[in-house]
This record gives sequence, C-alpha cells and structure tokens, in this order.
Amino acid sequence: MQTTGSIRNKVVSSDLQAERNNCNFDQLELTHLLWGGQKEYQRVRGIIADVERYEVLKGSEKWYDMSREEQHENALLRLRTMYDKYFDKYFKEYKPSMTSWWSVGFQGLMPFMVTFSMFYSAVKGLGSDEQGDKWLPLIRTMKMTGCYAQTELGHGSFVQGLETTATFDKEKQEFIINSPTITSFKFWPGDMAIYSDHAIVFAKLIIDGKARGVHGFMVPTRDRQTWAPLPGIEVGEIGPKFGFNSKDNGYLALRQVRIPKGNMLSRLVEVDENGKMHVKGDPRALYGIMLETRVWICRFASQQLSQGLTIAARYAVVRRQFSTLDASKEERKLLEYQTHMFKFGPLLAYIMVMNITSKYLIQEYETLEEELMQKKFDRLDIMHHLSAGYKAAFSKIAYEGIDTCRQACGGVGFSAHSGLPSLQADYAPNTTYEGDNTVMFQQAAKLLLKTYKQSLKGEKAQGYLAYLNDVDGLLKLKGQIITVEQALDLDKLDKALAVRSAYKYKRTMALLKEIESKSENERVHSLAAVDIVGMAHSHILYVAYQIFCANISQLGSIKCPNLRGHLQDLGRLYALSELKNDSASLYEAGYFESTSGTAIQNAQKHLLSKLRPYMIPLIEAWNFPDHLLPSAIGNSYGDIYETQLEWARNSKLNKNPMPKGFKEYMLPILTAKL
Amino acid sequence: MQTTGSIRNKVVSSDLQAERNNCNFDQLELTHLLWGGQKEYQRVRGIIADVERYEVLKGSEKWYDMSREEQHENALLRLRTMYDKYFDKYFKEYKPSMTSWWSVGFQGLMPFMVTFSMFYSAVKGLGSDEQGDKWLPLIRTMKMTGCYAQTELGHGSFVQGLETTATFDKEKQEFIINSPTITSFKFWPGDMAIYSDHAIVFAKLIIDGKARGVHGFMVPTRDRQTWAPLPGIEVGEIGPKFGFNSKDNGYLALRQVRIPKGNMLSRLVEVDENGKMHVKGDPRALYGIMLETRVWICRFASQQLSQGLTIAARYAVVRRQFSTLDASKEERKLLEYQTHMFKFGPLLAYIMVMNITSKYLIQEYETLEEELMQKKFDRLDIMHHLSAGYKAAFSKIAYEGIDTCRQACGGVGFSAHSGLPSLQADYAPNTTYEGDNTVMFQQAAKLLLKTYKQSLKGEKAQGYLAYLNDVDGLLKLKGQIITVEQALDLDKLDKALAVRSAYKYKRTMALLKEIESKSENERVHSLAAVDIVGMAHSHILYVAYQIFCANISQLGSIKCPNLRGHLQDLGRLYALSELKNDSASLYEAGYFESTSGTAIQNAQKHLLSKLRPYMIPLIEAWNFPDHLLPSAIGNSYGDIYETQLEWARNSKLNKNPMPKGFKEYMLPILTAKL
Repeated sequence: MQTTGSIRNKVVSSDLQAERNNCNFDQLELTHLLWGGQKEYQRVRGIIADVERYEVLKGSEKWYDMSREEQHENALLRLRTMYDKYFDKYFKEYKPSMTSWWSVGFQGLMPFMVTFSMFYSAVKGLGSDEQGDKWLPLIRTMKMTGCYAQTELGHGSFVQGLETTATFDKEKQEFIINSPTITSFKFWPGDMAIYSDHAIVFAKLIIDGKARGVHGFMVPTRDRQTWAPLPGIEVGEIGPKFGFNSKDNGYLALRQVRIPKGNMLSRLVEVDENGKMHVKGDPRALYGIMLETRVWICRFASQQLSQGLTIAARYAVVRRQFSTLDASKEERKLLEYQTHMFKFGPLLAYIMVMNITSKYLIQEYETLEEELMQKKFDRLDIMHHLSAGYKAAFSKIAYEGIDTCRQACGGVGFSAHSGLPSLQADYAPNTTYEGDNTVMFQQAAKLLLKTYKQSLKGEKAQGYLAYLNDVDGLLKLKGQIITVEQALDLDKLDKALAVRSAYKYKRTMALLKEIESKSENERVHSLAAVDIVGMAHSHILYVAYQIFCANISQLGSIKCPNLRGHLQDLGRLYALSELKNDSASLYEAGYFESTSGTAIQNAQKHLLSKLRPYMIPLIEAWNFPDHLLPSAIGNSYGDIYETQLEWARNSKLNKNPMPKGFKEYMLPILTAKL
Repeated sequence: MQTTGSIRNKVVSSDLQAERNNCNFDQLELTHLLWGGQKEYQRVRGIIADVERYEVLKGSEKWYDMSREEQHENALLRLRTMYDKYFDKYFKEYKPSMTSWWSVGFQGLMPFMVTFSMFYSAVKGLGSDEQGDKWLPLIRTMKMTGCYAQTELGHGSFVQGLETTATFDKEKQEFIINSPTITSFKFWPGDMAIYSDHAIVFAKLIIDGKARGVHGFMVPTRDRQTWAPLPGIEVGEIGPKFGFNSKDNGYLALRQVRIPKGNMLSRLVEVDENGKMHVKGDPRALYGIMLETRVWICRFASQQLSQGLTIAARYAVVRRQFSTLDASKEERKLLEYQTHMFKFGPLLAYIMVMNITSKYLIQEYETLEEELMQKKFDRLDIMHHLSAGYKAAFSKIAYEGIDTCRQACGGVGFSAHSGLPSLQADYAPNTTYEGDNTVMFQQAAKLLLKTYKQSLKGEKAQGYLAYLNDVDGLLKLKGQIITVEQALDLDKLDKALAVRSAYKYKRTMALLKEIESKSENERVHSLAAVDIVGMAHSHILYVAYQIFCANISQLGSIKCPNLRGHLQDLGRLYALSELKNDSASLYEAGYFESTSGTAIQNAQKHLLSKLRPYMIPLIEAWNFPDHLLPSAIGNSYGDIYETQLEWARNSKLNKNPMPKGFKEYMLPILTAKL
C-alpha cells in the first residue's frame, strides 16, 4: 500500500521509508565519520538542539521570498536571539573551530560571520600577543566588529598591486591611511558595508617616502554609538549578487584617516618610533591565515554538496516519471533510471573522498598552526600545495554537483522552494573567493615544479608525492584495465590515477624544458599554462584518492564491515568517474587499451547497481534537520507535493490579487473595447 | 597613453579600442550572418531603435536591485509603453517570427510573452480555422490573453500521465474540466498566475465514461473586467525561482468548470454532438508545436551565450591581474593568459557552430510547418531528432558557457551589476523546460535506433546521417591525428567526430543486441541508457559540425576571405574542443594514437594564439546595445570601474544608513557596556 508523504500529518512516504529500510550498515558510524568524529557530531547535535528550542531560530521557506532588506532584518533577529539565549556558549567562549555553529544552525549568511572568522583569525595570527589580549575578548562579545579589507576595486588576488597607502607620520606617531584612486577602493569584504565598526585594512606601508611592503592595520570605521562612518570614511554596500544576498559585502574609501601607531598588526613586523622596521616573525606565518580559509572551504564542500544531494535523492525516490516499468502501469522512480544513478552515484563518491580528504587537511592544518607558532615552516609548502589544489578542485566539484542535483529535479529544481537555487547561488562564490580556481591550480602546481627540480638533484619526493619518484616505472605499465574485474581493483585504479598524473607531469616538464629559452612569465602564463593547470588537477585528485584509501583501510578505522564495503565501492566509483572524465593520458601511456572504456563503464554500472539500494541510507547519514535547508521536495517525510502546493499558495505575490502596476497599466488595455 | 573607459565622459578605454582596431575582416558581414541575414538584422536594429526612443523602455541596472513585485511593475510599464507607442507594429500585426521584439528589446521576461508565443501557436496549430479566425486577432490585440496549461504538479514530460479530466456532457453540449487531485493541479505555466484570462488546458477527454486521449481545451479563467478568477477556478503564483522572477509561473485548479463544446481545440480531432470523435488531422501535427519551442531554444542559445561572452571578453581585455609581463611592471590583461583563452576561444567556436546550425534548423522547421499543413510528415522524424538533440546539447553548452563567463570575471562576475548572474539564472530553465535534457537525448537517439534497424534491412541512411552507412569503414581509419598539421585539417577533424560517433553507435547497438532477451524498458532505461544518451550526444555534435562546414564552405556564402578564415578556424576549434572533452572512443578505435593528445592541445594553442587578436571584433559583431543587458564591466566603453562604483553607491541598501532591524536588534548589544 502506497503512502503519500505529508509533513502536516507527520507521515513518511512509503517510497522513502522503503529506501530507509534497505540500510544494511551502521549508519551512526557513518554519521560520526562524516561530521569528523563522535564528539564533533555531538557538538553539532547540540547546536541543532539549541536552534530547535526557539521557533524564530529555525530556517523557513519564507526566507526564499524575502527581499534583501527583509533577509538582513530576519538574520539580525535570529542572531540577536542566539546572543540573548546562548551568549556564553557561542560568543563569550567562542573559539574558531571547524564546525561553526552558524554553519549547521543558520539559514542564510550569518551577520558578523566575518567578524567571527577572518577578522578574529587575522587579529590572532597577525596581531601581537598584546593586541590579541586587547581585541579578541572585545570581538567575542561583539564590542568590536570587523572585516578583512584586502581586495580593492582594481586588485584581487594580486596583493602586491594594492594601492591603499599607510604612511607613517613620525611626528604624530600615527599612520595615515589613504585611498588615492577609484581602483584603490576596498571592494567586496563581507561584514564591511553595515556590520563592522573596524576594518583590518591591508595597505602599502610608506616610511620616509619609501614603500615597505603590504601590511595590515586596524582602522576604526564607525562611531559605536551612532554607527555613522567616522570622518574620512566612505563606506557602503555594493549591491545585489548572484547569491549571498544576506551578506553585506561593502566598499570602503579612506581619505587621510589617521590611526595610532599601535594599530598596525605587529606579530610579524613592527615599526618603531623612529620609523625603523623590525621583523619579529617570519612573514610566512601570514600564509597560515590564508590557508585556514581554504581549509574551511574544503571542509564545507562535502557538507554543502550533501545538502543538495539529500534533497535531490529523496525527491528521486518519491517522484515517478513515465510508465516504463514492465508489468505495471505505475510510473518509474527517477532513481531507477540508469542515467539518474550515473549522476548521483558519482556525486556521493566525490562527497566521501572530499570529506575524508578534508578531515586529513584539517588535522594537518592544526599541526601546521602549532608549528608556525614555534616558527617551524617545513609543512608550509605541502599545505599550501594541498589547500590551494583542494580549494579549487573541491569547490568546483561541489558547485557543479549542486547544479547537477538542481537540474536532476527537473522543473521544481528551478523553484526556490526546492531549496536548491539558494544552495547553488550561495555556494557559487566558493569557486572564486580566496583565489580564483585557475589561479589556485597554478599555485598548487608550484610544488610539483619544485619537486621536479629537486628530482634532478637526486632528491626524493615524500609522502603522497612519492609516486613521482618512479614516473618512468609507472609509464611502463601497459594494458592494466581491460576487464571489469580489473576496473574494480582498488590497486589498479590507484595506479591508473597515478599514471594519468605522472604522464601529465612528465609531458609538462618536457614542454617546459623545450621552451626553456623563453622567460618564466611566458612559459608559465602563456605557453604551458594549461598543461600546468591540468597536471596539478590530476595530481591533486590522485592524492585525494590516496588519502581516502589510506584512511578507510587503516586498521579499525571503519568497524562495520558493510560500511567498509560501501566506502570501498565509493572509492572505486570516484576513481572510475575520474578516469571516465579524463582518460586520454592513460590511452597515450598505454595503461588503457581498446576495451578499457567498456570495462570502466561496465564497472560503473555494476557499482551503481550495487549501491542503488543503499543510496538513501548513505546520503541521509548526515542527518541534516529539515529546517537547515527548508525544501518542499527534499524533506525527511518525502512530502513532495502537499508542501509544494502549500508554499506556492502562501507565496508573496499571491497576497495581492493584482500585482502593482497591473491595474494601472494593463487593465485599461485588457478591458477596453477594440 | 592609457585611456580609462568612462561612460559618463563617453570615452572608450584604450585597451578596448586597441582590440577593435585589430579587426581584419568585414564585421558587418558577420553581423548579418549572426542575426540570420541582412534583412533580419535590419529588423533587429529597428526594434532597438524603437526601444531607444523612450528612456523608460531601455534596460537599467536598477532592475537587478528590484523585488519581484517591482520587476513585475516595471515590466508592465514597459509593455504598456510599447503597446501605446507601437500597437500596430508589434501587436496588431504580430506574427510569430524567430527574432521576437522582446528578445532583443526587453530586459527581463516580457509579461504576456507566453500569450504571444505558445498560446498563440497552439491556437494556430491545434485550433480549427474558425477558432483561429475568432481568437488570433483577439490575442494579437490583447483582448484575450492566455497560457499553455500542460504540466501538472505530479506530471511533467509524461503527457499520458496527466490527471486533469475533460468530461463530455452530451445533454448540455459542454465539457466539464476538473482537477481531481493535488497532483493534477496545473503547475508552472508562464503567464498563468496573473496575466492570463484564458488557459489552453490539456486534459484527458472522457466520453461516456471512456478515456479518449489527451486534448487541448480553451478555458476562460478570469473575469475580464475585474480580473477575478471565475467560479471553480483557483489560480495563483508558485513563488520565487532561481531566475525568471519577472515571469508569473502559476498553478491552476479547475473544479467542475464547464466550457462550451466549441472550446475544444479541433484542428486535429472533433467531438460531435453525440459524443462521437472525428479525426480530422494527423495527430503528428501536434509535434510541430512542440518542435517550434525547441527550435527557438536552439536559436537563442548562441545569442544568450554571446551576451555573456561580450561582457566577459570586454572585461578580460581591460582588467589586468598580476605583473607577469616581461620588461613591464604593468599587470597583464586577463585575456593574455593562455588559461583564459582556453575558456573563451572554445565558447566563441561553439557560438558560431550553434548559430549556423540553428539557422539551418529554422529553415528546416519552416519547411516542415508548410508540409504539415499539407499533411506531409516525412520530415517529422529528422526534425524531432535534431530539435530534441540540439535543444539538449545547445542549452547545456550555453548554460555552462554563461557560467564559465561569469566565473572568468572573478569576484565581479558574482555581482549582479556585471549582468552575468541574471543572464545565467534566467537562462537556466532552458536545460529543463520543454523536456529535461537527458530525456531529450533519449528522444534524439530514437532515430539512430531506427536507422540501425533499417540498415539491417539494407536501407541506407540519408543526409547528415549517411556516415552511419559506413561505420566499419570509419573504424578502420587508424592513427590519423598525430601531428599538429593533421589536427588542423578540417577533413580529418570531420572524420574524427564521425569515428567517435560511429564507435559509440556500433558499441551501443552491440550492447543492445547482447541484452536483447531483456525487455525494451530494461534495455533502454536501465541497462544501456547511458550508452544511448552518450551516442546521441556525440552524433548530434558531429551533425552540427557537418552543417557548419557545409554552410561556410558553400560557394559565396562568406564573401570576406579573412572572415571565412576565422570561421574555419572556429570550426577547427569546435572540433578540437569536442575531441579534447571526450576522446576515449577515438583511442579505442585507433584513430588516435599516443601523440594525438599533444597534437590536439598544440593545435588548440596554435588556433587560440591566431584568433586572440580578433576575439573582440568577432564577439562584438553581434552589436548588442548596452541597455539590452546593462553591465558595469562589459559595456561598450570598457568602463569597468567608474560605473561599478557608481552603481554600488546607488544600490538600494545604501538608501538607509542602517538596515531594518539593525537599530532595534543589534545596536543595543553593540553599544552596551560589557
């Protein structure tokens, strides 16, 4: 007997329930794995419970129908409620941690989010201990709010090009911060337009007429009582965006604004009263902060994509389309179409690999952070490499994956009520901010170029780069995947990804050698740029596979044997999807032969059939609450119609029988006689 | 001397001007080609001139900052102005044509657009001559407005599954239209929620208790004087969407609504007073209407993508990033990065191929339309094949291409003021409506399956499918592209695309044979679905290449030799991009060998370097007016900063120094003592 899902009646659709009943593994173990451990998951549940205690805090579909002004107002009300109810827990005792409370309990973008992330971290990482002691408690209690004012209208990733100046006035022991041109306007920083009363302004330091590099300065921007901009400050909001419309990205111009000498962030460098610069720390420590945000982006890629997949996959097991079942007039579930599984199966595989890889990245970052404080910099190169590469690779996968989820829902994926449009649009900046993805792959490639140079001197690559020590050996492997069995062999898949990367590495290095008479700029940006980016991309995805396999095969890491089996299958599927996307190198290297494509596709089909029954239990292991991303088609009841109709009926344009302008402009025409 | 672009001062940026000065071909000839001929282009200019005559008609950046209500109001005001100023030209004498006035002169979605397209065409194509004579003049003068009410909440592409009923009441000679369930609510039709007073409702006809197929019925939905829904009608708007927010997509329920017998659209079938059905025409004529919308989608794919590329490419020759030039501290133009040309060059190539292919499609469609009226149906199969395939392929290319353009602008591509977010979001439904793209490829595949069956009987495929007559011959070609010269050879590229498609065709047919013991449903939807879709995709892209080459090489078709050269290079680039994306079949077939990948990439590099100087003149040949898609970074002055700052300053959130809620919820916290 078919049961229709209904939120109103608290009834779960029988189609969705049947999928849940298929679960043959320890779902809670997977839940813990996905959230980064049992302890972290308990913290997450705690946040969710705190949110659920007050109706006003919970996400609502009304959000989708709000203007930007209304979204700001609503977000501020929710933030204020959090502050009133949970001041000690989430503010006073705030520590940056990988799962922030607002990422699992706040619909839209949290106001002051930048205050609590980049602003806080910059003070901590770039400010002296005294500055930290002074400012951090104020930030935690919102007695000081701020933004990270680096990007300018004319200058993005190229920090050396920043035009804002900070001129040292020896007499008054002050810095004069100035925006000399239109292109020097600070542009884009979040929390800048409205929410901040301070900005960490990155500016070209000038002492005695000489440029002394770009540094960060703490600049008060508003009167704390009236919230009016201080003299010399022009600040405003930059306007509507693709997504992120509840965030107050801003512009800021500073006209000869004076700040005390003590407001220069001085963990790394300090200017004394005579205008002499003292290097106190290694400027490389600055990288740590940039890396942190990238690591966050990697961490959230799997979570955000999973939110989209949760919606789309639930819809796909309840929604039916075309009567293409044998011996039944019933329509077929979307997920019963092979083409649909070919969309969602690989996404689930990427989610698992991204999730496990990010966890590794977080651990490594935490170690790096400690080491940087002890002025140890060895780990910086590899972390820069991995975080840049994964920022680019994962944000691309997640962004495109969310879009795939949205499109796979057909028309309703285009409706804001599905939850998918806001997810996609709000996720979109991840591919751009903290470094455009193309630039990020170029950054990631640097370590490979360095590794090659070192190899010429006989130095061996270490860790996950070790495969590059035997490029020629890898390229000697021929015809390794010609049957389905081979295409399912974890080790052969590992080698295939290694060969693909090694082939591109070798070819790129040969090309660079061939054009070595050209300048470095020409080689890297004009002649071999696509080769370098392609090489970095393949390499970084191979390293993710290595990290994933190492983690799930580690003794005792996965207790439930069925879960381990599913994860291994997802690892296989990840590798196969990658090989399917980009296999030319493998044919050229001879690792693939004329039946490899068929073998790979058949292996994919095999795995997707095998995984099909467990898709919902695997995806739902995240256990997202419905209010985190309200969806009329992807809620936990499998209610895909009742709620859709109800939300449609309640939508804003239906409040007035005639929209503005209709009566005035159109009715006279429509009702006039010919 | 560098000149900065400034709209205010009517100064063109010297960087942009320098690009324009590179033009070495007859740009006007290309302009005519792109718009479908000199005459059509003159019509387009006429529309643009008509729009430019009244400030209120011109697009404005304010649009991006409007709520949905405000967008509706603004669109209605513009429509009313058009109606007042140009009633005869654009309304009374309206004829559906490939370039509608609103597609080149209307920012956002035109209200009543569906009235003038699908509603009008359905009356024309499905209504009897008498019905047409009665209704079409009313529609043209807006004395009757309507929508195409097919899709239901529970039923999309599967027309046979529609639940709405139209029961014949013999006694009263009426049809009773009814929505029996929630899932039978009409859902999504544009112009339905607010703008229509009629709906062509597709419903299951029931006569004497027997279902007699799905047919179209003209149902009045509103009182023309008060605009209130008529008794038994529930109608409303479905809520906010990813894009298209100025379109009133609606829902509609009909509760035992009675319409006269004469309101059944009866060109094809008629019910007499005794309830007997009379087939008057071939039901296949119905396809014609569905094809028309698909052909439109194909036609607009190249135009819409070009709008995005115009913005992104102008920005890329004015915006500079990183000082990576030799012997200069100046930063490098984005388009001088190889990675950037690898994004934009292929998009331009796809644009040209899509444009020429669509023109062919339009011509074929026009012929088909005439033939259908004469009850000739031979061309229907191939047109169904091509229009389904190109709808899927081109909408995907254009959608992803616009996204590429948006992302290639970095941060500012995320700002609505770039124009790119609205372009992307409003374009997005093209991949979904009129048939989900996966379903469309499956539809396109049908002719290939039929061709194969016919080939077994010795029948030869004709026209652009003729290459399938010699699959084995094609698959015998070995190692054909191993040098750059070969990779630039138009004929070898043709063969490469043919081999790729032939290989998939052969492999798919072999698979279908292998599983012939399974049911048709299982074979087509489960076991070989991805093979079928992949085959159709490769085939359809190869046919586009054939059409493109046939058209540009036709004697006298392109007069300017340099233009012909550029088009040939773009044809090469199209083929190379395709081969780069998906080449496994070619390695498996042996057409590619171990150096093919390098040859292809080097050929791409060669072509992109060659085309680089002409990118702006080639892209700008469309000659879009700035007001069609207002952009702070892609206007014709190359003004990428001044306008950006001005629009930011004028944006809505800056009207109030403090957003709603801030003073009330936040200020007390922010200013309180600890």
